[in-house]
Amino acid sequence: MKISSAIQNLQRSLIRKIFEESLNYQNVINLTIGDPDIATPKELVLEAVKRVERGHFGYPPSGGGLEIRKLVAENYNKHFGTSYDAENVIMNTGSSEALACAVRTILDPGDEVVIFAPYYPAYVPLVEMSFAKPVIVDISKTNFKITPELLATVLTEKTKAVIFCNPCNPTGVVMSKDEISAICDYLADKEVFILADEIYNRIVFTDYVSFGSFPQIRDKLIITNGFSKSHSMTGWRMGYTIGPKELYPYFLNNSGFTVGSPAVLSLEAAKIALTKFDDLAWLAAEYKKRVDFMTPALKSLGYGVVPCEGAFYLFVNYEKISGKDSLDFAIDMLKQVQVAVVPGKAFGTEGYFRLSLTVGVEKLAEAVERLKNYK
Amino acid sequence: MKISSAIQNLQRSLIRKIFEESLNYQNVINLTIGDPDIATPKELVLEAVKRVERGHFGYPPSGGGLEIRKLVAENYNKHFGTSYDAENVIMNTGSSEALACAVRTILDPGDEVVIFAPYYPAYVPLVEMSFAKPVIVDISKTNFKITPELLATVLTEKTKAVIFCNPCNPTGVVMSKDEISAICDYLADKEVFILADEIYNRIVFTDYVSFGSFPQIRDKLIITNGFSKSHSMTGWRMGYTIGPKELYPYFLNNSGFTVGSPAVLSLEAAKIALTKFDDLAWLAAEYKKRVDFMTPALKSLGYGVVPCEGAFYLFVNYEKISGKDSLDFAIDMLKQVQVAVVPGKAFGTEGYFRLSLTVGVEKLAEAVERLKNYK
Repeated sequence: MKISSAIQNLQRSLIRKIFEESLNYQNVINLTIGDPDIATPKELVLEAVKRVERGHFGYPPSGGGLEIRKLVAENYNKHFGTSYDAENVIMNTGSSEALACAVRTILDPGDEVVIFAPYYPAYVPLVEMSFAKPVIVDISKTNFKITPELLATVLTEKTKAVIFCNPCNPTGVVMSKDEISAICDYLADKEVFILADEIYNRIVFTDYVSFGSFPQIRDKLIITNGFSKSHSMTGWRMGYTIGPKELYPYFLNNSGFTVGSPAVLSLEAAKIALTKFDDLAWLAAEYKKRVDFMTPALKSLGYGVVPCEGAFYLFVNYEKISGKDSLDFAIDMLKQVQVAVVPGKAFGTEGYFRLSLTVGVEKLAEAVERLKNYK
Repeated sequence: MKISSAIQNLQRSLIRKIFEESLNYQNVINLTIGDPDIATPKELVLEAVKRVERGHFGYPPSGGGLEIRKLVAENYNKHFGTSYDAENVIMNTGSSEALACAVRTILDPGDEVVIFAPYYPAYVPLVEMSFAKPVIVDISKTNFKITPELLATVLTEKTKAVIFCNPCNPTGVVMSKDEISAICDYLADKEVFILADEIYNRIVFTDYVSFGSFPQIRDKLIITNGFSKSHSMTGWRMGYTIGPKELYPYFLNNSGFTVGSPAVLSLEAAKIALTKFDDLAWLAAEYKKRVDFMTPALKSLGYGVVPCEGAFYLFVNYEKISGKDSLDFAIDMLKQVQVAVVPGKAFGTEGYFRLSLTVGVEKLAEAVERLKNYK
């Protein structure tokens, strides 16, 4: 039986491949996936549980309901100087569904979407699942910077959107205000959507500016975000999209037919997160400690490390250590010293691997000891 | 800014339209949406809560994990005489996402999908969102029966799938074993997927046979189901897909990129539902009571009622009461007597409305009293 060509042709996840490979070894230090070791705050869970016990388990309102949508808008405005209100926001089933919904809402078959490598792996299949074409632009050789000049070389009449990930997974790079400003000025009069994946923007160690604070792109900007990383709530599947009010009915139709609505308990947890757990400095500080430990440690072993200014990943160049292809390198490292990392290939960039800082410093120190023995 | 043509052209939900209209009136008896008044069993909630407190909130395993997939397969086999195992099952974010995932996994632009009217409203947009074409076949004039002869008149070289809803939302019709058997024999050697939406199959008042019990269509059968209706768990967003093992990697990729995974707590609740709350006779009995009250009551007022053999809806013919178009009729009924129902038009069939039996007999009796005054 023939299935959809788009689905048939999707690449298998390299992250999953490495994970499965890792099951063949004992005592692996797993630094592959972006699932925080830090638990959802206990008090948040207990409060959500209390609301469960009151027992409202019907379908939540379409789009998540006005209360949470307003809270999200106000929270974004407070932290990022934006000026959104409830009508700009729809709640999604994780930022995965926010992204999927955004992409599907805007793309027609044959459209082109500009994606910068190294990229978050889901961008490519999401575009392909809409029968559209990812246009990959390598920025690993140009210090991971994006300029209007670079955009000018890749935009075509078919370009429907450009995706930015800021802070960037996998590099940890945070775009500067000047960099974003120049991009926004350039794109302001283009018929091109800007998708800003800002899921890591509560975990930053430098100045941070949201795409949402640039009024000149307001009509074309779609921000995706969620609670998975900011509140260690990955398993709750709670995300959201902020965009032009005119798009809301379309997001609502698309998301409604795809998932119905987010889970009602997860919506309650998100409300609690926004109202009672909005001080997240402690979380960023914990990740910063790990960055500050791991960066010099890897450098002292001869690795190149992209300076991490946000999120909780290190993007590591191993070309002085090995000439291997990144998948072979990651498998070899797993085999030799039982440290699991994601090959750069998964993000469209050879010569690197990504290391998740989702274990504590003690475990990271153990990983460093093991890497000393890697040949 | 131009968005996706597929999303741009989606019809607005008539159910939502009626719902919004109903907000203009006081003291409305809302019989529109399929959200049970019966609560998720309290003990199930409390047990799920206990598991919350143990505090595992990371990403659940891809596809939901082997434990729950095995439980689902065994439960289906037990109730419906099928022979599935864990490898046939993927867990989804509600049966909405099960349906969306199934449709997207198999469809290419231009494919045709046969849908019988009256239909569950989401089928049409889901097909359109894949840039494919819904082929609507009216069975309201032929006693809601589907035959090989009927299929033969609508299948073309472009037909990629046929969708069956059994028990049927909105009619409450349950397909007989002979009816399904003849369909399966006919489709067995066709290159056409069978999508069987069996979400209501724990709420039946007659003999029931799953499409899964017909081996001749095993390679082409995709069943979607979930816990929303069987366990009154709509707000938990917990569904699943059962299909050929060969499709599992594609479902996994598709669902993984769309939503990540179901919410971890909802997966736990589903495990409890399957292991400790599998006796659902009381639930079916409660709905049957409502069917048995409401059917003769409506008939005595001059309405035609499709005999309800499953699910919790009555599909009601009003042509002896009014010559209005179904949307006008529903709005007029709301205006005159403040009873909200869904116009047949929402399901592709004029001359009818759908009434949800998601309130108790006392409230239904009040609705009947009001309908007596409708002119």
